[in-house]
Amino acid sequence: MQTRGTLIRAAASVFDEFGYSGASITEIINRARVTRGALYFHFASKEDLANGVIDAQAEQVRVEPRELKLQELVDLTVTVARDLSADVVLRAGIRLAVEQGAFMSVRESPYMTWIDMCRRILEEARESHELLPHIVPADTAELVVGSFSGIQLLAQARSGRDDLRERVSTFWNHVLPGIAVPGVLARLDTSAVLPDESGSEPPTN
Amino acid sequence: MQTRGTLIRAAASVFDEFGYSGASITEIINRARVTRGALYFHFASKEDLANGVIDAQAEQVRVEPRELKLQELVDLTVTVARDLSADVVLRAGIRLAVEQGAFMSVRESPYMTWIDMCRRILEEARESHELLPHIVPADTAELVVGSFSGIQLLAQARSGRDDLRERVSTFWNHVLPGIAVPGVLARLDTSAVLPDESGSEPPTN
Repeated sequence: MQTRGTLIRAAASVFDEFGYSGASITEIINRARVTRGALYFHFASKEDLANGVIDAQAEQVRVEPRELKLQELVDLTVTVARDLSADVVLRAGIRLAVEQGAFMSVRESPYMTWIDMCRRILEEARESHELLPHIVPADTAELVVGSFSGIQLLAQARSGRDDLRERVSTFWNHVLPGIAVPGVLARLDTSAVLPDESGSEPPTN
Repeated sequence: MQTRGTLIRAAASVFDEFGYSGASITEIINRARVTRGALYFHFASKEDLANGVIDAQAEQVRVEPRELKLQELVDLTVTVARDLSADVVLRAGIRLAVEQGAFMSVRESPYMTWIDMCRRILEEARESHELLPHIVPADTAELVVGSFSGIQLLAQARSGRDDLRERVSTFWNHVLPGIAVPGVLARLDTSAVLPDESGSEPPTN
């Protein structure tokens, strides 16, 4: 298990730096400091490694349970925004998703992990009567994931992601009035500060 | 002028296919059927060609004036969604923006043309009292362009862009309630059908 984790992190750092097509197995082996045999014991191919990174990225993200499920959804995006700079597995996962969407033809799952996660939270929000009646959780989940992908790319181009949290806050200020019932809307915190950060100033990245 | 236009289109088709770093001047010359000397008469470098493509993409997009400026903004996104499949210059411009945002370090303008265009429309909407008082046109413009970039990448991954118009319609249904004053909101058409298409069924791509 430890070797597997080491290989995932090494593969993530290579995908993050060179993209899927530019990534070489040799470079991954070098960074992981394992033998080629050890790699192929755990992963059949480069694609298999990419899938390992994609599966691992979502496991990294932990969101505290909240009374309002829509607050959990906001927290999820703020957590990803916070962790992107420090977490190479998360960053590689997003690069694989964006590249695949734009220019590769692999399986479609890099996005699906996030879409499913958002859809489940939105379905819980529906059960808690937080959503306006016309909202379809599956459609809103795709909207959130699609928009977030683009917003973080734009943030990277404009500020090296320094203002990503601010942009996530702007996104929710624009979108929540179209999703949440008024009584819930008034109680949602879109300041992009997480519960475990309260009392301290929000970091800028 | 004709050679310049031919070179822009040839460069766009090469950028669209290979990306910025994979594009070669030789391939651009071959596709344009011009000499190397003719290319360097018009463009100093590959970067200069990329900037030419970026400047050209926005010139392609024409939106009919509308009584409601927010309708013009919706129409602009629907027009880009409609033209992306057919228009290689538009597609190359978006690929250059996305790649640059993610992995290159060129000038930041691929996005800026679109952000400026959206901001100007939103400022007109502000003057026509279409916007809720707290809306800042510059922030909303960045939100629209960032989200659109991501939504079209996700649409490309999920359906080869077949459902891009539907996704653009979903985007506006979510976002307009957070932007428009109620009297304007009720009059906006988010069906993603353009004025010159009315009377006929909306195309699916």
